[in-house]
Amino acid sequence: MKAIQDYYPEEFARCFGCGRLNENGYRWRTFPTGDTTETRYTPQPYHMAIPGFVNGGLLASLVDCTATGTAAWAAYRAENREMDTSPPHRFVTASLRVDYLRPTPLGPELLVRGHVKSISGRKVIIEVTVSAGGEVTVRGEVITVEVPESMWPPSAPRPP
Amino acid sequence: MKAIQDYYPEEFARCFGCGRLNENGYRWRTFPTGDTTETRYTPQPYHMAIPGFVNGGLLASLVDCTATGTAAWAAYRAENREMDTSPPHRFVTASLRVDYLRPTPLGPELLVRGHVKSISGRKVIIEVTVSAGGEVTVRGEVITVEVPESMWPPSAPRPP
Repeated sequence: MKAIQDYYPEEFARCFGCGRLNENGYRWRTFPTGDTTETRYTPQPYHMAIPGFVNGGLLASLVDCTATGTAAWAAYRAENREMDTSPPHRFVTASLRVDYLRPTPLGPELLVRGHVKSISGRKVIIEVTVSAGGEVTVRGEVITVEVPESMWPPSAPRPP
Repeated sequence: MKAIQDYYPEEFARCFGCGRLNENGYRWRTFPTGDTTETRYTPQPYHMAIPGFVNGGLLASLVDCTATGTAAWAAYRAENREMDTSPPHRFVTASLRVDYLRPTPLGPELLVRGHVKSISGRKVIIEVTVSAGGEVTVRGEVITVEVPESMWPPSAPRPP
């Protein structure tokens, strides 16, 4: 099954978090599941904050990439287009808010869920939760925007 | 010159972002400079979001670790204590807000500055900026709290 990030044009597939072409990155993959999305990841033992608990920066990063992926998927969906059609949608983060509701245990697989809160023009707001062992430990809200012209790689297909 | 993180007890020095004992981590170091703190880091070429620009998750992580370090320093300072005295202060993040004001260029060293906004009881709020080439590209606000009893490693000196 293809992930949302599998549809990113090559120029946009090098993100340290979720770029399938970044050999030094995490290569997180986000999948649509009905009206939400899912990203799953099991942190490494060294991804700790304090022994036994997952690092908050890593969790923020998971929230971030899940949100930008979910935003791209939502943008195609709003236009009734498949993700393999052109022009591509690719979002970056304008503002990230992460609330650490309780410590996230280090060990179990994390389930990161993205939910579209709103779409207006080039701006998509995504709500994200991170769960460990069925319990939500982190809640995020991410304001994403379509990649601005100034960041668009010269060789990539032009933005919509 | 010793960094704030050099004073963390061993049990608290394994953070993926700023733990001096985490061999797989970034080992960021934060230094007091007058009334603020500074963390400097030059991202690796693969720490990208889109080619040419720094990954937002990494920036959030830098904001996070700079904030918790700054909070610890501020807590000792508020008690007129040196950082090598006991009991230790160590903070974790309750809420992280990061605004990406403009794209952060990938290449130059980043200067991350922490500023104490408020201290009340076990809660310290830190404002953070990230600059590249003298221009502020990211602004963060982080609510940190003293490590709760439930996260305190059994072997560490007891919290205040």
